[in-house]
Amino acid sequence: MSMHDLIRQLKDSNKTKIVMLVADGLGGLPIEPGGKTELETARTPNLDRLAAEGTVGLSTPVAPGITPGSGPGHLGLFGFDPLENDIGRGVLEALGIGVEVGPKDVAIRGNFCTIDADGVVTDRRAGRIPTEVCEKLVEKLRAVKIEGVETLVEPVREYRLVVRFRGEGLSDNVADTDPLSTGLHTLAPKAGDAASEKTARVAAEFLRQAKEILKDESPANFLMMRGFAKFPAIATMEEVYGLKSAAIAVYPMYRGLARLVGMTVVEPGKTISDQFEVAKAEWDKYDFFFIHYKYTDSTGEDGNFAKKVEVIEALDAELPKLLGLKPDVLIVTGDHSTPSRMKSHSFHPVPLLIWAPATSRPDLVTTFGERPCLQGGLGQILAKDIMPLAMAHAGRLQKFGA
Amino acid sequence: MSMHDLIRQLKDSNKTKIVMLVADGLGGLPIEPGGKTELETARTPNLDRLAAEGTVGLSTPVAPGITPGSGPGHLGLFGFDPLENDIGRGVLEALGIGVEVGPKDVAIRGNFCTIDADGVVTDRRAGRIPTEVCEKLVEKLRAVKIEGVETLVEPVREYRLVVRFRGEGLSDNVADTDPLSTGLHTLAPKAGDAASEKTARVAAEFLRQAKEILKDESPANFLMMRGFAKFPAIATMEEVYGLKSAAIAVYPMYRGLARLVGMTVVEPGKTISDQFEVAKAEWDKYDFFFIHYKYTDSTGEDGNFAKKVEVIEALDAELPKLLGLKPDVLIVTGDHSTPSRMKSHSFHPVPLLIWAPATSRPDLVTTFGERPCLQGGLGQILAKDIMPLAMAHAGRLQKFGA
Repeated sequence: MSMHDLIRQLKDSNKTKIVMLVADGLGGLPIEPGGKTELETARTPNLDRLAAEGTVGLSTPVAPGITPGSGPGHLGLFGFDPLENDIGRGVLEALGIGVEVGPKDVAIRGNFCTIDADGVVTDRRAGRIPTEVCEKLVEKLRAVKIEGVETLVEPVREYRLVVRFRGEGLSDNVADTDPLSTGLHTLAPKAGDAASEKTARVAAEFLRQAKEILKDESPANFLMMRGFAKFPAIATMEEVYGLKSAAIAVYPMYRGLARLVGMTVVEPGKTISDQFEVAKAEWDKYDFFFIHYKYTDSTGEDGNFAKKVEVIEALDAELPKLLGLKPDVLIVTGDHSTPSRMKSHSFHPVPLLIWAPATSRPDLVTTFGERPCLQGGLGQILAKDIMPLAMAHAGRLQKFGA
Repeated sequence: MSMHDLIRQLKDSNKTKIVMLVADGLGGLPIEPGGKTELETARTPNLDRLAAEGTVGLSTPVAPGITPGSGPGHLGLFGFDPLENDIGRGVLEALGIGVEVGPKDVAIRGNFCTIDADGVVTDRRAGRIPTEVCEKLVEKLRAVKIEGVETLVEPVREYRLVVRFRGEGLSDNVADTDPLSTGLHTLAPKAGDAASEKTARVAAEFLRQAKEILKDESPANFLMMRGFAKFPAIATMEEVYGLKSAAIAVYPMYRGLARLVGMTVVEPGKTISDQFEVAKAEWDKYDFFFIHYKYTDSTGEDGNFAKKVEVIEALDAELPKLLGLKPDVLIVTGDHSTPSRMKSHSFHPVPLLIWAPATSRPDLVTTFGERPCLQGGLGQILAKDIMPLAMAHAGRLQKFGA
């Protein structure tokens, strides 16, 4: 029996509130050998108190050694095995810029490119045109009309855009049109199965009209498509856990990921303080709150150790507002590590804290950080195991067997 | 390859003795924040010495967050994946009162209920009749005779009873007859597949005769059946591990569970001291001894922290008698946690100790308790991984591959 089948069978309902506070990219590394990580450096009296009263450990987002993107990272936190629940590239790109993707949609990543008079690709990124040019060209592409399908085109950044087709009978097994090398023609969008033939025809028609619209532009006079992806067949938080769930996230990607698993996306305000206020306002309407804090990741990506320390301290300082709501279960962790030393997501396990006043078994750890978490009572677990533990602490799982 | 297939392939035979001492519901929680658990509070010089000489850790009975009943909890300890080896409700209820269940049997949970003149259920629990009344009514039901099937009826408690059918060609895919609400007729026992039609016919005939027998009783004038369950198709300890195994358990449920995996149930006496005496008397006849101690669970269920501490100390005090037998491998753990603070089974990992003088690799832990076990050399493992470790320490597993 799969863990999800088991949870569906055992799930119970009560009045408890579960909060999952995700500090994106929380885990880090010391700058100097033997030094402290960002989280260990930060002064975090509130997180330390929660660590002392609750149980800590480390979360491996997907599997040892695997560095996740935001999609797999969050799916794991929501209790879905990221290896068994694939979110296609086109869908992630669309979610990242706030384009909704629903069950009738296929989302596609687009690249503006340069082709010569014979249609041969001379620059796969069209000289990395600035975002303003991208926006102007996308506006022109909105003139494309295809019978029986609604098309949406949105700029991403520089030469990148998103195309979304919405209609009946669209599937996503369509090959990329990027020849992956200059000096070659772009490829026709080719269906890999019968169910995807309509999508391939629609994409070919889109590209035909786009070529006409862009023919006098320079350097971006055509586009290539890749990462055709349909809305994933994924269960909702309500189906698996029986939890009415709200997402309070400022950035589009995380709102989109939450929507994929059926959470209601509520307006978050601008700051983490606003987000906690929103949680307070929505407190009675939901069982589960996903609150996303972006800046631990972005400062890590920037390689700014000191700034990452600062945003961790800022998060900690706001925590009393959240604690004032008296959640029954509070989870604090990240979707992956983003060590400022690496300026990127990494595979390192992520500090994890589960605080549940009624049921936490204390360990010997009294501060929240990578090293202390190694001594924690949760040990090192997979991210997908966090939700069953949260459900258990909330008293929302019946006994298994007699 | 499954772990069981691997063990079957590698298992070897020698003269070693393995003892698995199960203190039911051993794990606990502190009463006060930051306080000690029951096991940490108890004075346990013998367990502490074993912890110092052996290796400790924590056992997760089924999966993170899952609270097991006694069935899945013990299956895990015996090395069977509780998610893949389901023991039906009727069988567990039967085992719990000492009714044997074998390969030709279907066991069923019964409820006495009250029906009106039209056969409509007016009380699903017959006013929660006292156990003495239940016993009297069960005695009457023993008059039921069904051609080609042996029937057994036993009281459980209050309005609950067990019915067991023994015969050829009985399967257990039969729907409950409880309509789950008053104001409705009881349901006919309906077969869910062709193999279960005989069982459904037998159950219908049983209910027909029972209605006649009980018609003048009040308030319990009928019964409902649920949880039809056959003896599970499960391997034996001898088949998987090559171990001749004895169960020394005072309570029927655990004797029954041991019998399901092919252990020989020997008469245990009354106290843990008696049980250790029995182990001594049977020492030469078996390779593996499952010794079950109930009181760590029952005191936890009662919410009696002080008493749970006391029964842990009582167990510890008797240990020298067991150690005098010089087992090659001694496992001390529980089938789940039963924190007295929660007055119920819980999902928390269970302290685990494996002591094997010839092969234990010591860790830094010198006392037995939830917090010390977090630092232990076994880490946090699944219960089903304990038996392979025990086999290895006993020198009963050959090398895998060349």
